[in-house]
Amino acid sequence: MDLTEKKLTGEQVYTGGFIKVQLDRVSLPDGKIAWREYIHHPGAVAVLALLDDGQLLLERQYRYPAGRTFLEIPAGKIDPQEAPLQTAQRELLEETGYRAANWFYLGKAYPCIGYADEVIHYYLATSLRAGERQLDEGEFLEVLTVPLSEVMAMTLDGRINDSKSLVGLHWLAAWQRGELRCEAL
Amino acid sequence: MDLTEKKLTGEQVYTGGFIKVQLDRVSLPDGKIAWREYIHHPGAVAVLALLDDGQLLLERQYRYPAGRTFLEIPAGKIDPQEAPLQTAQRELLEETGYRAANWFYLGKAYPCIGYADEVIHYYLATSLRAGERQLDEGEFLEVLTVPLSEVMAMTLDGRINDSKSLVGLHWLAAWQRGELRCEAL
Repeated sequence: MDLTEKKLTGEQVYTGGFIKVQLDRVSLPDGKIAWREYIHHPGAVAVLALLDDGQLLLERQYRYPAGRTFLEIPAGKIDPQEAPLQTAQRELLEETGYRAANWFYLGKAYPCIGYADEVIHYYLATSLRAGERQLDEGEFLEVLTVPLSEVMAMTLDGRINDSKSLVGLHWLAAWQRGELRCEAL
Repeated sequence: MDLTEKKLTGEQVYTGGFIKVQLDRVSLPDGKIAWREYIHHPGAVAVLALLDDGQLLLERQYRYPAGRTFLEIPAGKIDPQEAPLQTAQRELLEETGYRAANWFYLGKAYPCIGYADEVIHYYLATSLRAGERQLDEGEFLEVLTVPLSEVMAMTLDGRINDSKSLVGLHWLAAWQRGELRCEAL
């Protein structure tokens, strides 16, 4: 069955500092007309940064929409004209101060398929070297290093419940078990 | 370090059919002022529906924002005044036609902590009985049953890359290994 919905007309109905809402009129598989309202997003990256001693870099960050702090893997939005790998390297350095000698591509995931076009590219970074972090103005976050086995326990007991991080850690665990091959970059 | 950001003023700057954008003026940990723009969402549920023969219920659905179909676990938004378990039971029945005798709570996850307050509650449903599905007007989706081992392989080879589903399957795999205890409802 062809489930495709075809765009008839559309406009950007809200343009904020970051959020852009698109409202399109579409034809459904049965020929009927419907409206589709969604966020246009530039895409993002997330980094599984694994230290030589088996610890993983995590961040604790206050997230205003949910009104609480979260434990997360490093991540950030792709800037205009930036390749996703560049974003990953830039965000890791800015947020944690670490540089990695080895980068691997783990895969991509769509965090909000119901109302956003965002895609997140996941990278594994190894052979890390610590340095000075370069936070953006108005960015506050703590960097933690946690043994990977403990991080995996955190994905199951509620300490990590940011979906972006849970997906990355699902793939990192599979990579560790030899079930996920990833591409060296 | 206290990372809390305090709301000073705020308003709903866009009110669409479903998407509501909130723009708040906040004070940062260093006392500076910033703006926070985000989507207000009613919350959602997702269901790991495991048949007696070890197959899992999946759906294939066209998602207009990304312009493609996705393989997903059943899920849906919480209606006003609805308890999350009720939503889970209603969505499973509407979208797949199945009713479950046993329900377990697996946990909650936040799909878009950067720009939405959405939380997704995850349920495991077992002792399933097939029936007639009751799709909403304008809702088109295919229901599949796939052996769980195959579903887990799909989380690693790109066939499943919806984050909501990947998180649920990470927890379901841990539950199968006896590493995640879940609450019977």
